[in-house]
Amino acid sequence: MSSISLSEARQKNDQPNIIVIFADDLGYGDLGVFGHPSIKTPNLDRMAFEGQKWTNFYVAAPVCTPSRAGILTGRLPIRSGMSSDKRRVLFPDSNGGLPQSEITIAKALKGNGYQTAAIGKWHLGHKSPFLPTDHGFDSYFGIPYSNDMDKVEKTDHFTLTENERYQGYNVPLMRDEEIVERPTDQRTLTKRYTEEAVAKIKDFKKDPFFIYLAHNLPHIPLFRSAAFKDQSLGGIYGDVIEEIDWSVGQILATLKEEGIADNTLVVFTSDNGPWHIFKTHGGSAGLLRGAKGGTFEGGMREPTVFWWPAQIKPGVVMDMATTMDLLPTFCAISGTDLPDDRVYDGFDISGLLKGSGKSERETVFYYRGQRVFAVRKGDYKAHFITQLEYGNPTAHPVTLPAVTVENEATVLETPLLYNVNVDPGERFNIAEDHPEVIAEIRKVLAEHQAGIVPVENQLEKY
Amino acid sequence: MSSISLSEARQKNDQPNIIVIFADDLGYGDLGVFGHPSIKTPNLDRMAFEGQKWTNFYVAAPVCTPSRAGILTGRLPIRSGMSSDKRRVLFPDSNGGLPQSEITIAKALKGNGYQTAAIGKWHLGHKSPFLPTDHGFDSYFGIPYSNDMDKVEKTDHFTLTENERYQGYNVPLMRDEEIVERPTDQRTLTKRYTEEAVAKIKDFKKDPFFIYLAHNLPHIPLFRSAAFKDQSLGGIYGDVIEEIDWSVGQILATLKEEGIADNTLVVFTSDNGPWHIFKTHGGSAGLLRGAKGGTFEGGMREPTVFWWPAQIKPGVVMDMATTMDLLPTFCAISGTDLPDDRVYDGFDISGLLKGSGKSERETVFYYRGQRVFAVRKGDYKAHFITQLEYGNPTAHPVTLPAVTVENEATVLETPLLYNVNVDPGERFNIAEDHPEVIAEIRKVLAEHQAGIVPVENQLEKY
Repeated sequence: MSSISLSEARQKNDQPNIIVIFADDLGYGDLGVFGHPSIKTPNLDRMAFEGQKWTNFYVAAPVCTPSRAGILTGRLPIRSGMSSDKRRVLFPDSNGGLPQSEITIAKALKGNGYQTAAIGKWHLGHKSPFLPTDHGFDSYFGIPYSNDMDKVEKTDHFTLTENERYQGYNVPLMRDEEIVERPTDQRTLTKRYTEEAVAKIKDFKKDPFFIYLAHNLPHIPLFRSAAFKDQSLGGIYGDVIEEIDWSVGQILATLKEEGIADNTLVVFTSDNGPWHIFKTHGGSAGLLRGAKGGTFEGGMREPTVFWWPAQIKPGVVMDMATTMDLLPTFCAISGTDLPDDRVYDGFDISGLLKGSGKSERETVFYYRGQRVFAVRKGDYKAHFITQLEYGNPTAHPVTLPAVTVENEATVLETPLLYNVNVDPGERFNIAEDHPEVIAEIRKVLAEHQAGIVPVENQLEKY
Repeated sequence: MSSISLSEARQKNDQPNIIVIFADDLGYGDLGVFGHPSIKTPNLDRMAFEGQKWTNFYVAAPVCTPSRAGILTGRLPIRSGMSSDKRRVLFPDSNGGLPQSEITIAKALKGNGYQTAAIGKWHLGHKSPFLPTDHGFDSYFGIPYSNDMDKVEKTDHFTLTENERYQGYNVPLMRDEEIVERPTDQRTLTKRYTEEAVAKIKDFKKDPFFIYLAHNLPHIPLFRSAAFKDQSLGGIYGDVIEEIDWSVGQILATLKEEGIADNTLVVFTSDNGPWHIFKTHGGSAGLLRGAKGGTFEGGMREPTVFWWPAQIKPGVVMDMATTMDLLPTFCAISGTDLPDDRVYDGFDISGLLKGSGKSERETVFYYRGQRVFAVRKGDYKAHFITQLEYGNPTAHPVTLPAVTVENEATVLETPLLYNVNVDPGERFNIAEDHPEVIAEIRKVLAEHQAGIVPVENQLEKY
């Protein structure tokens, strides 16, 4: 890229625009095209049909902060100090954040001439030098952590009016490094994020850009604009998803209107599974077992869609991939050198997007904090440690007790083993039939763990 | 229709061809477009995208025989004597069957000049005068009951080779009223049914036709042709579904090749939910609770697709409908008079197919045998009687015991109440909050039951 100008590169079509849309706590089963029967998502359904629907796509961790460190750095959060067994995410009193030594997607692409913008939830440190503008983004507009933080008082958000509810969470809305609104009026948050994204696309359109649009929703407390209120058969949660679907539609429509759709890769996914403890204010993992916070599939497998009209081969892709594959992939398609001074946990999947090749990925590590609870290798997933999540409802509430307290982590003498392609619901433990598979996975895990270098923990600084 | 010839009617496009594809024990979550992550169904996915995907579509009963009586007559099976609490389906030793007094879809359409063919599983009586050719079908090719009947010996079908397995079930393959093969070579069953359907389309193409293609699979024992063996990530069950998907593709391709696709309505659905007791040889109800045999949603809500290129308004339809709506709908679109001498439990949904109007349906009755276990009215579903199914696996096998014996039916003092749009997984009982809804549903149930006239039971004759 050094010897030709950006506009030349653009004409040569070798620097696509890239948009990542990252939902918060959206479950695997919450979109129409992933099986939800009462939430309408026509824009995402069409996006999946025109593009690729990925059904074995994982995040780097089952909760917000480490998952976000993973997607933006292409590395497991344990490598950047962004995971902890004591404090699972950053809080308003946290002093840590994503270290400057990390190279985000934005920083990598910006170094290759991309315009960059972060919109929405950050949750990788809300103090300098951890903000988006410290990490390669030209601009930032959003809430720097979760929308349920800075609670004014103990509130039961189910019984409050929406007016009362948003005032109960004194979260700041920031533009670049400044707080511009507090509490954030969350009722129009998805709408305003969308308007910001549309404005950025129009502003950026002449040269390559990267936009990271990380919705705060459907993380509780739930809010949606007036136009979406009580519109969904799926209740308030459905309303919220339908507004996010509308948002996706606005973005794709803008790309088409501006004539840059063919040269823009849009990725839609979520940071972790649905938050079951909030019942009908939480989503569904579909046929998958488990939920946010845990290492069963429902906690870490996400409904993922890639869209790139002129380049992608439409279809369903069942290869394993993770959010950590995005950085190497984006580097590949933009002609950006991948830094060679560090370990990456992602692989370039651009071949698969274009319909050729296979994923190089053979393993997924399911971290809960700093411990690996489970490992998937090919079809097989072994659980070495399990921990049922607080409030995770059962499939049979009539006769079986709901789990009402968070259980302790249990190191299993004999791991649980599932074939997660044949048995995606992790219902049928086949450990006894395949001791050799467990032995092989143990070996893979030991090799992985031997390569982890301890670093300063960022989540435990407060 | 009386004053013009069929070919004139055909030119006027007012007598569409109709094909019903009815799978056996396919679960709500088993197709890609309904959320399965490791079973590839590109033909059904495309059919749903080009046509309509219905997400609140029910069968008349959670097991084979009564469900099939419901789809073909447009009436609850209790009205035709085709349900029982003692014998839930017909068996090879049964002497009963669908009474001649019943008017099947085939008989109604044949009376209006349609050519008709039944292919596949019948299960409405295998002796005269109960066979397809006794009920308005010009021809029949298939197994007259379930593919797991006529067991030669007690076999564990999991451990047998496929060769041994098909020989373990001495089921007859019939052409019209004759047995032409026994045991049926089930390994090529889906393939041969498909070839028969394609041949019938080509044979029928000049004048209106109705084809009822009722696959015996994915009911256990599972079989698939050589070309589909070990092809699916989803294991043998996935192979079987992928062959059915191929079959759908063959049928749609034939309609296109013959130039009659625009004038052909194709409906795809299943007779009841997945048979969980067979573990990885059974399917998945996705995010729905329950399975085959039971009256939770997973037992009776089916993955349903309507396709009719020139007439249908593509999209997702979340209105309630049932298989019993097909007969009135087919009568409406073909200009066939609906007999007025009997009660129908179905409604004409042709307006919805064309994108106008709403479903007239306000209720769904969930029968188990002759008793109504649950009633849905609008968003709400009340369970008056519950009965956990044998072997129904739980979502949390680690800590919760699997149900290993069939429980007794329990009449609930306070019914369970769910909003099945907001909570399709029937996880959050809201009975205490809505006694008025339960009272209203009780009233609807009492009115319904007052209108049921006792008839001779067909399933208890053997």
